[in-house]
Amino acid sequence: RRSLSSPLQHHVITVIKPVFGSCSVLFDNVSSLSGVSSATPTEEMNGAGNLMDFLDEPFPDVGTYEDFHTIDWLREKSRDTDRHRKITSKSKESIWELIKSLLDAWSGWVVMLLIGLLSGTLAGVIDLAVDWMTDLKEGVCLSAFWYSHEQCCWTSNETTFDDRDKCPQWQKWAELMTGHAEGAGAYVLNYFLYILWALLFSFLAVSLVRVFAPYACGSGIPEIKTILSGFIIRGYLGKWTLLIKTVTLVLAVSSGLSLGKEGPLVHVACCCGNLFCSLFSKYSKNEGKRREVLSAAAAAGVSVAFGAPIGGVLFSLEEVSYYFPLKTLWRSFFAALVAAFTLRSINPFGNSRLVLFYVEYHTPWYMAELVPFILLGVFGGLWGTLFIRANIAWCRRRKTTQLGKYPVLEVIAITGITAVLAYPNPYTRRSTSELISELFNDCGALESSQLCDYINNPNMSRPVDDIPDRPAGPGVYNALWQLALALVFKIVITIFTFGMKIPSGLFIPSMMAYHHHDWIIFKNWCRPGADCVTPGLYAMVGAAACLGGVTRMTVSLVVIMFELTGGLEYIVPLMAAAVTSKWVADAFGKEGIYESHIQLNGYPYLDVRDEFTHRTLATDVMRPRRNDPPLAVLTQDTTTVEDVETLIKDTDYNGFPVVVSRESERLIGFVQRRDLTLAIKNARQKQDGVVSSSVVYFTEDAPQLPASNPQPLKLRRILNLSPFTVTDHTPMETVVDIFRKLGLRQCLVTRSGRLLGIITKKDVLRHMAQMMNQDPESIMFN
Amino acid sequence: RRSLSSPLQHHVITVIKPVFGSCSVLFDNVSSLSGVSSATPTEEMNGAGNLMDFLDEPFPDVGTYEDFHTIDWLREKSRDTDRHRKITSKSKESIWELIKSLLDAWSGWVVMLLIGLLSGTLAGVIDLAVDWMTDLKEGVCLSAFWYSHEQCCWTSNETTFDDRDKCPQWQKWAELMTGHAEGAGAYVLNYFLYILWALLFSFLAVSLVRVFAPYACGSGIPEIKTILSGFIIRGYLGKWTLLIKTVTLVLAVSSGLSLGKEGPLVHVACCCGNLFCSLFSKYSKNEGKRREVLSAAAAAGVSVAFGAPIGGVLFSLEEVSYYFPLKTLWRSFFAALVAAFTLRSINPFGNSRLVLFYVEYHTPWYMAELVPFILLGVFGGLWGTLFIRANIAWCRRRKTTQLGKYPVLEVIAITGITAVLAYPNPYTRRSTSELISELFNDCGALESSQLCDYINNPNMSRPVDDIPDRPAGPGVYNALWQLALALVFKIVITIFTFGMKIPSGLFIPSMMAYHHHDWIIFKNWCRPGADCVTPGLYAMVGAAACLGGVTRMTVSLVVIMFELTGGLEYIVPLMAAAVTSKWVADAFGKEGIYESHIQLNGYPYLDVRDEFTHRTLATDVMRPRRNDPPLAVLTQDTTTVEDVETLIKDTDYNGFPVVVSRESERLIGFVQRRDLTLAIKNARQKQDGVVSSSVVYFTEDAPQLPASNPQPLKLRRILNLSPFTVTDHTPMETVVDIFRKLGLRQCLVTRSGRLLGIITKKDVLRHMAQMMNQDPESIMFN
Repeated sequence: RRSLSSPLQHHVITVIKPVFGSCSVLFDNVSSLSGVSSATPTEEMNGAGNLMDFLDEPFPDVGTYEDFHTIDWLREKSRDTDRHRKITSKSKESIWELIKSLLDAWSGWVVMLLIGLLSGTLAGVIDLAVDWMTDLKEGVCLSAFWYSHEQCCWTSNETTFDDRDKCPQWQKWAELMTGHAEGAGAYVLNYFLYILWALLFSFLAVSLVRVFAPYACGSGIPEIKTILSGFIIRGYLGKWTLLIKTVTLVLAVSSGLSLGKEGPLVHVACCCGNLFCSLFSKYSKNEGKRREVLSAAAAAGVSVAFGAPIGGVLFSLEEVSYYFPLKTLWRSFFAALVAAFTLRSINPFGNSRLVLFYVEYHTPWYMAELVPFILLGVFGGLWGTLFIRANIAWCRRRKTTQLGKYPVLEVIAITGITAVLAYPNPYTRRSTSELISELFNDCGALESSQLCDYINNPNMSRPVDDIPDRPAGPGVYNALWQLALALVFKIVITIFTFGMKIPSGLFIPSMMAYHHHDWIIFKNWCRPGADCVTPGLYAMVGAAACLGGVTRMTVSLVVIMFELTGGLEYIVPLMAAAVTSKWVADAFGKEGIYESHIQLNGYPYLDVRDEFTHRTLATDVMRPRRNDPPLAVLTQDTTTVEDVETLIKDTDYNGFPVVVSRESERLIGFVQRRDLTLAIKNARQKQDGVVSSSVVYFTEDAPQLPASNPQPLKLRRILNLSPFTVTDHTPMETVVDIFRKLGLRQCLVTRSGRLLGIITKKDVLRHMAQMMNQDPESIMFN
Repeated sequence: RRSLSSPLQHHVITVIKPVFGSCSVLFDNVSSLSGVSSATPTEEMNGAGNLMDFLDEPFPDVGTYEDFHTIDWLREKSRDTDRHRKITSKSKESIWELIKSLLDAWSGWVVMLLIGLLSGTLAGVIDLAVDWMTDLKEGVCLSAFWYSHEQCCWTSNETTFDDRDKCPQWQKWAELMTGHAEGAGAYVLNYFLYILWALLFSFLAVSLVRVFAPYACGSGIPEIKTILSGFIIRGYLGKWTLLIKTVTLVLAVSSGLSLGKEGPLVHVACCCGNLFCSLFSKYSKNEGKRREVLSAAAAAGVSVAFGAPIGGVLFSLEEVSYYFPLKTLWRSFFAALVAAFTLRSINPFGNSRLVLFYVEYHTPWYMAELVPFILLGVFGGLWGTLFIRANIAWCRRRKTTQLGKYPVLEVIAITGITAVLAYPNPYTRRSTSELISELFNDCGALESSQLCDYINNPNMSRPVDDIPDRPAGPGVYNALWQLALALVFKIVITIFTFGMKIPSGLFIPSMMAYHHHDWIIFKNWCRPGADCVTPGLYAMVGAAACLGGVTRMTVSLVVIMFELTGGLEYIVPLMAAAVTSKWVADAFGKEGIYESHIQLNGYPYLDVRDEFTHRTLATDVMRPRRNDPPLAVLTQDTTTVEDVETLIKDTDYNGFPVVVSRESERLIGFVQRRDLTLAIKNARQKQDGVVSSSVVYFTEDAPQLPASNPQPLKLRRILNLSPFTVTDHTPMETVVDIFRKLGLRQCLVTRSGRLLGIITKKDVLRHMAQMMNQDPESIMFN
């Protein structure tokens, strides 16, 4: 029996690298199975009473995964079913258990309610704070310093309707400090203080992130996608991240950097989701169930970011989530609605609407306009491709060169440049959402915007709503120039901003970048026509096209856009632009910005959308390779404790297949490294007679040994008796499909009943990278 | 070698019943595999030149399934990948091939466009025809008999604005025939003719269905769900069904029966989808790809039924589809939009909106109103439960008793009863969609409806929009009584109508049944308040609640409702009612009306939503059972042609596992019955030397036999080398999950590398029925 130990030591080859596997067993599962079929009476009679006790106690860390490991979805699901079964059978015992089981059944909805309430509240607070701090860069409200410019003048009685933005209570810094509101000196002072504030905000933001929560940087969506696909990044959705991200998000947006709060809000909502998961063991102890909650939380995040509950659900479904059962659909919708409703109650925009940029016009559009809409789609697609390429190139440079070592300096520099360049142009100085709101709107009679400065010819005595017919005044041309400059500036600066070590969202900047475009072309083109085109509509369609090009969303994008603006009529133009934009962008590269960042960071993400079309077979991918030493296996009844310990010491795989004998190579199960270690350690401490030369049995009954032999160690209970197998002739496309749909971590390969090798998720990802001529070594978390 | 034939004949047991399996191989798949690994040079040298030729020719029916069989999703996907690979590799050869490959890539979008155009057009035509024929029951337009009442008076110059419904061109039958428009005689004559027309229409409808297309009856949604889950019902989506369903749908709706056109429109759209699939071999030859198109077509169907493109996509996702990849999401959205847009261009409602029941009010609602909304939800849930139970009980009675033998008589009788009872009440006489439109709307100053007959007190000199403040006039009370009667009548008659052998939809009748309810309660409750409640909103919420109770939709329902009415503000009330209604109804029974009908008809539908929570293992479900004879298997190199032929003759399974030897029981593959039959038949005809005593080889190389032995038959190419296996200890919940997610047809069960048995989809369904204490024999198509 001992003769096997040395071949084992030498023939062992690395099969499952710890980067991917995790270290726990199908423990509940196995114990439930053994309850049905494997716990034969002989087992208890066999002197293994201690073993029973030891195995009935749960292991300290059972059911948890190590950091940066991948979860096994099938196992998580199986564990949840077991838990559910236990609760259901208990619930018949007493009223108290019945109540507990009802509470358990409702806990999902309770978590959703809490997520909705907290993320709605946080979004409201963030909105208010951003408003106030953005205005703080320019001036302060004398009547109450915590009022933003708009609130300040709103509460003032002296404001006239014509000039809502001007009131004596609101003073710019120069006016407050020197008493002079006008003049070059005041302008320079204001300019200087604006930059100073911006630098202060961004410095605070980047320092907080670096010191307290390094995971709070960036948009968070690539990481959330990876986490939802089954990867563990501990602390990424923790309490500290939540707190710091909320604070720094306000600082970063207020600093005037070209970033939006939308992506980070999704991250914030997911942190809320994670937080509330810890209240219920149903979710905190099951990584699969936890991910269902996180999917719903992502929907709530988008819901509050745009006031678009349905769009949020679709965003979660289309863009973020990996497994999205129907149950999650309903719960996401509920969470999204509660969040949107909470935000509406807080009412940060002061218009008691769910809608962020409500558009008032309902002008119909004409079939012929589809041509410019599709052109906008093409432009959006091109811009998306350009943006992704440039941004990824910049981020790669940041990662690989000296640049990455000075993140604080980088943020300060970009903030400085942004502030210096943004202040002189009124369209870049104000906050991005204000700007979008103005661009989306049609000119009305009371509009004070420069863009609506049409020449008012009193002789024509036309009614108010015919404004677009009037010839454009000088203000319009002026505004168009400024907008064009703003467009170029925003495009360039956003490329450098996204990916910095500071909370940053992409939506609003992306939406920004395009309106202008159409204004320039179409405004001039249609001035003679009667009520020819609605410029706001073009801004909307342009925004959709560019966002579509960058993120490759379609349905969710269109729904978000029309929920955002309330324009149900414009669904066809929006759709035309979004689909064109996706097609054009896909022609240049399949990946959206989030997938590109996932790849850049080397997260182990098995994309559902990538189609695997190569002709390889399981045998080409499995380990061991042709010239490798044979597979490290355990035998069911000939390995000793010492052999196992040597195997564990000499290898770093996360688990070992168990076979009947090394000659027959018939597979009977799979045992996890962690359980093996724990089981042997426990047995050596608690079970008398287990020594190094004890034989480890994975069979149902250990044979009656002569008394001179050492006490055997029976480990069938930690054995997973239903490991997943495929034959060596299975095409890789099927294997990839199985890994995706069932969320496996590893899969054993057999040929005519003989164990040949093993394929792990990492092997699959490596193989896919190889097939696409990428460096397979880039696919791991680093 | 021949000694095996008789044990095989006797020990063979029925494993895969032909009801479920289908009869083709993983043929493309296998041939592609052999290209990689199994086609060794020795094979060609081995005198099997003829065999090669024969195998290179595709079998006549390769890749098709028999009627009432289940498809294998993994195989279909694999075949499509192969096809795609071929096209991609060819496209590099010439420009023409490149163009072909581009056309192939775009064919999906072309099919979507065609589906959208055709289903939009058909929906428009159906709407117009129903309008005309519904009015034909009451009278005719003298200026042009093909005008409906509304069109007739619309084109007339003599119509006053106050009484849009009355014009001299439109004459009721009594007026036309006797010259008297008023009086008891005229009323009776109109009444009589109304019933006569109704009977004529429904008789025509039921006869057409019986004679030409029996599949055109019913709503079609249960069957479409089953088809989308992978079942084959040939002709269900055929050209004849399309034609007859369109015609009879018009007749059935016009006859005044309590049924809607929404469900059947989904069926019609799916027929369109199937029709256009046949244009492209990509879809017509692959049942998996075809189902992707059908999912999108279902979305287009709902889109035109309600003018709700987003709701349609969500309906398809939530309610109808089984596999819904992201690609299908985008395409569905496209098809739904094209369909809605086509319908808008036809403009059957004459209001140039996508929206069917556009509501004009945007009154805000109050938090306190959530209480009645939730009560409405409870009512809706109860009604849903009641309706499903009663309807299923009635349908079961129809199936099992004499009643089912006289479908024409039944339709005639129900039509007669409906017509007799419906005519006297103005709310049941008119078409259901007109009624809903009136109920959803708020009373305006110009409204002529009785429901808006508030006492107009000129002394109060209030502005027009304060109408709800006025005390109710006698007309309101009268209307409320009539509505209450209509409610009771509709509830009862709908139970009997749904499920008759005539196209019938459920949406509109379901939506109908509830408004009334709230009117009665809340109208009286709030009359004193200022602008207290919006009755139309209650009607809307009530409709959502009842539809939710009947169908158990949530997100799609809310989206459809708000797209239907354009009321984005009312999403929270709608959601509250829909979720409550679902909860209440789920408490009484998990299944919606469609699932109940699927179960009633015994379709083999593996519901994604049913959670399997029992503790059984694969070994408890697999065949052969404990006392059964052993599994029917083939050996890789010892079976003769005669043995195989006897096995095929004596059993009716759809396939046989192939093992190394009967002693070792090591599985090497799975061979389909149909391929085996075809291969042997072809070999006997075309290949010299293959006789009954020839040995069948499934190995890579046949050994060199002495010349005296008959020529061997090599069949490795029809062998599926990657059959799906699980171990006997796999929990059934995992097996069910695998069947659902991978869409398997069968799965082999092994223990330590030995073949033990087989589990088919039917076994799984039977086992699930058994676990839920249902009759397992009801689960099959009958």
